[in-house]
Amino acid sequence: MNELLTAPPAIVAAGVEVFSAALRAQGASVTDVDWRPPGFGRAADLAQLALDPRRAAANRVAVERVLAAGSVLVDVRPAREVLDLPDRMLLHSGPPLTWETASGPMRGALIGACLFEGWASTVEEAEKALAAGEIALDPCHHHRTVGPMAGVTSPSMWMWCLQDPVGGGEAWCNLNEGLGKVLRMGAFNEEVLTRLAWMRDVLGPVLQAAVRSRPEPMDVKAILAQMLQMGDEGHNRNRAGSLMALRELSPSIVAVDAASSGWSSSDIAEVLRFIGGNEHFYLNLGMPTAKLAMDAARDVPGSTMVTVLSRNGTEFGVQTAGTGDRWFTAPANTPVGLFLGSYGPEDANPDIGDSAIMETYGVGGFSMAAAPAIVRFVGGTVPDALATTERMYQVTLAENPAMQIPIMGFRGSPTGIDVVSVARTGWLPQINTGMAGRVAGTGQVGAGLVQPPQACFEQALAALAEESRASV
Amino acid sequence: MNELLTAPPAIVAAGVEVFSAALRAQGASVTDVDWRPPGFGRAADLAQLALDPRRAAANRVAVERVLAAGSVLVDVRPAREVLDLPDRMLLHSGPPLTWETASGPMRGALIGACLFEGWASTVEEAEKALAAGEIALDPCHHHRTVGPMAGVTSPSMWMWCLQDPVGGGEAWCNLNEGLGKVLRMGAFNEEVLTRLAWMRDVLGPVLQAAVRSRPEPMDVKAILAQMLQMGDEGHNRNRAGSLMALRELSPSIVAVDAASSGWSSSDIAEVLRFIGGNEHFYLNLGMPTAKLAMDAARDVPGSTMVTVLSRNGTEFGVQTAGTGDRWFTAPANTPVGLFLGSYGPEDANPDIGDSAIMETYGVGGFSMAAAPAIVRFVGGTVPDALATTERMYQVTLAENPAMQIPIMGFRGSPTGIDVVSVARTGWLPQINTGMAGRVAGTGQVGAGLVQPPQACFEQALAALAEESRASV
Repeated sequence: MNELLTAPPAIVAAGVEVFSAALRAQGASVTDVDWRPPGFGRAADLAQLALDPRRAAANRVAVERVLAAGSVLVDVRPAREVLDLPDRMLLHSGPPLTWETASGPMRGALIGACLFEGWASTVEEAEKALAAGEIALDPCHHHRTVGPMAGVTSPSMWMWCLQDPVGGGEAWCNLNEGLGKVLRMGAFNEEVLTRLAWMRDVLGPVLQAAVRSRPEPMDVKAILAQMLQMGDEGHNRNRAGSLMALRELSPSIVAVDAASSGWSSSDIAEVLRFIGGNEHFYLNLGMPTAKLAMDAARDVPGSTMVTVLSRNGTEFGVQTAGTGDRWFTAPANTPVGLFLGSYGPEDANPDIGDSAIMETYGVGGFSMAAAPAIVRFVGGTVPDALATTERMYQVTLAENPAMQIPIMGFRGSPTGIDVVSVARTGWLPQINTGMAGRVAGTGQVGAGLVQPPQACFEQALAALAEESRASV
Repeated sequence: MNELLTAPPAIVAAGVEVFSAALRAQGASVTDVDWRPPGFGRAADLAQLALDPRRAAANRVAVERVLAAGSVLVDVRPAREVLDLPDRMLLHSGPPLTWETASGPMRGALIGACLFEGWASTVEEAEKALAAGEIALDPCHHHRTVGPMAGVTSPSMWMWCLQDPVGGGEAWCNLNEGLGKVLRMGAFNEEVLTRLAWMRDVLGPVLQAAVRSRPEPMDVKAILAQMLQMGDEGHNRNRAGSLMALRELSPSIVAVDAASSGWSSSDIAEVLRFIGGNEHFYLNLGMPTAKLAMDAARDVPGSTMVTVLSRNGTEFGVQTAGTGDRWFTAPANTPVGLFLGSYGPEDANPDIGDSAIMETYGVGGFSMAAAPAIVRFVGGTVPDALATTERMYQVTLAENPAMQIPIMGFRGSPTGIDVVSVARTGWLPQINTGMAGRVAGTGQVGAGLVQPPQACFEQALAALAEESRASV
């Protein structure tokens, strides 16, 4: 043992080449071991898909639709008008769930939405109505909608209305409330409800007037591309994106003041301050941008590309281009990361939110190399961030030429997760995410890193193989 | 020769280790040659300074003053009020110069300023007055002022007024006009003069009212620190910084509208649009921030730290903490880089501007690793950008803990250029810069990379050694 400490260190590296390369770059001598994590999936299923003559072309069609999709902001409207929902229905993130299976933050957000809509006047009334099934629940994803964290969307919330000018698709998302005690993190106290009321009465209408007065719609995809050049990855770092959205919208917001007497200049200043004070303001524009792209690739028979990664706080759900609207679900993992204040790992709820649509689109965790500063928010180290992006190239179908990562020599973001590549390599998609408190009402407790449960991909692989057999 | 092409490539790398490390990181086999560029300076001078007992402590004092200095925006005022100038004096960038020795873009800017101030009504009149010495010329640096490119500052221009809350220093800079045909690049046509008039009549007064109405002054140094986390290096990339300045100022700008009837809401919207449309808006806030820090380290006997790097389009000038206000000058080099439109190398003027104060402060070219996307603007490759920052650590006295570079594992920016280290290593400071057209009136032709002439450092070294001998 003593000899071990006197000799110079000997380094043996296993796994992706980038780890040993980083050590070599520091002058260390490294011995590589030819090892990768074990893959998964039934050999017969992998063979079936490998031999499916449709697969290569179908995946090319699917990912090219993703790459081609654009995203412009065309309107801001109340959810009531945008979504033709039945009375007393709330949308939520992730795959379908019931009140019984809902986690703490999801319950908190559902309760808060009932109070906000006036469907209940106390928390107890709201819980009773929800438990009795008087409030219907449906996934955002079933309504061309995405919502961060709990993703709870109710009729009086205002929605960003985005359009894909290439394929003509539409996608919607409500407005971001900021960090801390917010509905999407499961908080529903007076502060949360007061903010939601202000967003309903001032922010939404002012943004509507501003967006409608623009000579041309804001190019939301172009902002995302710029963000990757400015240290954002578009999921947990949206600093540059939020600033660019503010810059784009502020002249029209100011002009609203003149055109209408509905608001005072202090309302307008408050709108600018609210947007300027929320570093995640862009997230709710980025998510429907990714949703537009992924929806453009829905229903491509034979494609093994993932179209949805999403979590409802209880289960993780996956959809693929080759299997349409079918969900492959399994219990969600709990993120590992950094905590706010005195919160710790025991306070974190399992993975929650539609925001993993960013990773599905090749940004977020997949483009962490573009945002090395994010490790101070989600944990890990800068070499980890670079290695994550390197690894994600191994499970994706294309490099998105519109989403360039400067530090990787302007290589495009790794885009279009291939279920077969995930199974073969054993590398699960890397998601970075906010963490909500487990107990309803808590709000945000931290941010961290998480992966989908392998079981979702095992199910998707089996279903794709089955569909392949049936198609021949 | 044929054999050369059939064998695998053999790589031999000379110079800083980072080149060979980058190749190794790509799996190449590299043989290192122990070579560095030749140093310079008389051996007797280097020995004198190496043995000067004051030097280590003096350099520590100097660089600690640089690191400690803060920068807040306290006011916006016309140059006439801020600078107690004699009548008909214009400030310019770099070391002292005369009309006879002024380059094309400097002449263009001086002519434009005379027209703008109404000191001449035609170009010919302006040239005549300038050639006759009726308009006095003085360096910005002699008036606690810095100016990008030609740096021409005239009484009717509005100035950012910055203060160092730590040492109490003050520094000033005029407002950035944007890119292309602008006075600071030597253009002086109607478009330029109309913009300058609008900046005088609307932008300046609105910014003054906005800045004065803020509850507390804007922390300009904190913005610079954030920029390095957002893909800016603070000299030729100021995108995030300009957005952050807009975010900080916009609520107060909007509130100006209410408080005063002097401007219409379309004036206010135009101000927001002008700032939002100028990706270099922050530069004129960053430069006086660096100036505050470097001025805090003026006059530290025995210190070999550089306090000024600056160019007037004809000569490059250097000052050091140990030699006070004395300039060490030599003919300026011409930058090498990328050109706008159909411009080419023959259109570029030699190096010009006080903006190399950013490199003097450890950002700009010194922090290019923080801004890999900048290579698309100034030329070079991403590995070059990383290598440049690595190299600048070898000629600087400290790492600035306030200015962290995420991709380098949050290492602080290389700060405080040591004349002795520059001479010993032969590594001249790396500056990235805009390029003005050689012909007066042209405007910007590109952006690129440039170094000071070695002669400035040879002179500085000799003067420091002489002062050292005299002091003992």
